Amino acid sequence: MFTPPLARLIEQLQRLPGVGPKTAQRLALHILKRPEEEVNTLAKAIVEAKKQVGLCQVCFHLSAESTCEICRNPNRDNQTLCVVADSRDVIALEKTREYQGKYHVLGGVISPMDGIGPEQLNISPLVRRVSQHQIKEVILAISPSVEGETTTLYVGQLLKPFTKVTRIAFGLPMGGDLEYADEVTLARALEGRRELDYN
Amino acid sequence: MFTPPLARLIEQLQRLPGVGPKTAQRLALHILKRPEEEVNTLAKAIVEAKKQVGLCQVCFHLSAESTCEICRNPNRDNQTLCVVADSRDVIALEKTREYQGKYHVLGGVISPMDGIGPEQLNISPLVRRVSQHQIKEVILAISPSVEGETTTLYVGQLLKPFTKVTRIAFGLPMGGDLEYADEVTLARALEGRRELDYN
Repeated sequence: MFTPPLARLIEQLQRLPGVGPKTAQRLALHILKRPEEEVNTLAKAIVEAKKQVGLCQVCFHLSAESTCEICRNPNRDNQTLCVVADSRDVIALEKTREYQGKYHVLGGVISPMDGIGPEQLNISPLVRRVSQHQIKEVILAISPSVEGETTTLYVGQLLKPFTKVTRIAFGLPMGGDLEYADEVTLARALEGRRELDYN
Repeated sequence: MFTPPLARLIEQLQRLPGVGPKTAQRLALHILKRPEEEVNTLAKAIVEAKKQVGLCQVCFHLSAESTCEICRNPNRDNQTLCVVADSRDVIALEKTREYQGKYHVLGGVISPMDGIGPEQLNISPLVRRVSQHQIKEVILAISPSVEGETTTLYVGQLLKPFTKVTRIAFGLPMGGDLEYADEVTLARALEGRRELDYN
């Protein structure tokens, strides 16, 4: 039904996350209709991103340089470290424009079921970083799944001897409806209650 | 927020249909996590599909050869021609495995608003093909939009002197609910009614 080069393209596109046979076909036919120059630019962007982007040697965030832009930025607070599971989380936090400190990307969460122990994550470099530099606070910002909780507790234990360790708050999402919140979220919201502050 | 090669990749992916900023970011981060070999295979599939796939010189369907697989297939009925707007429609019809004739792809529909007149479509080659070969029936299978109807009527007029011209049926989709069908579809379904056939 598809001429071989088209079939190969559809097959490759289907390997992308969230792309099924129908979407792959639509994308492939779109690509065939675009000017050759535009298509080559797309292919080049793919190859070059893969070739050039590695991990920052300090925080393990994605970076085309040996040290990432955030680590190189002299205006950012050197004494606060936010620990996340994935580069995706750095991007999400940066979008809030609320956080001015630096990051440390673990590269995943502890998950014995998937064969991921502490050694597979960037935990030793984190401990080294915290113990060797003046860090006033480490904020653990890891999603509250079973594996995430394990990772938070494990990393927290390791870092406590060196600095103050906090974790981000869990509770009702903004705009969320108390009535529809699940019990665990509600329990966490109650537990994390704070005094009203009129400053 | 994104290291430059990653930003360029996200920008390129966003040009694909149905891919917004969030999806582009997800696809890009996925690509960075795959092995280099797999990423290069994807890029190569894109470049080669664009380079190798052109149009069949007989029916204008997508093809890597000068004549497409359907036109080359000696087992297909040479005397029936199905006229469609786009290669996508050939693929959809082939999936039904119902049709054994050949195709002719117009490359679009007549749409004066978009500057597409009959000269921009593969209509002259169609008339030549029908007038010079023994074609018993031409089936017009063009979507029933305003432009599609115009195209159907225009092409039908041109081909009538040479052969029998039919069009596909419009009516309730299978599994469709009469109550929820729009009036135009219902009217077409009524108009296209056929005697019950117990053969």
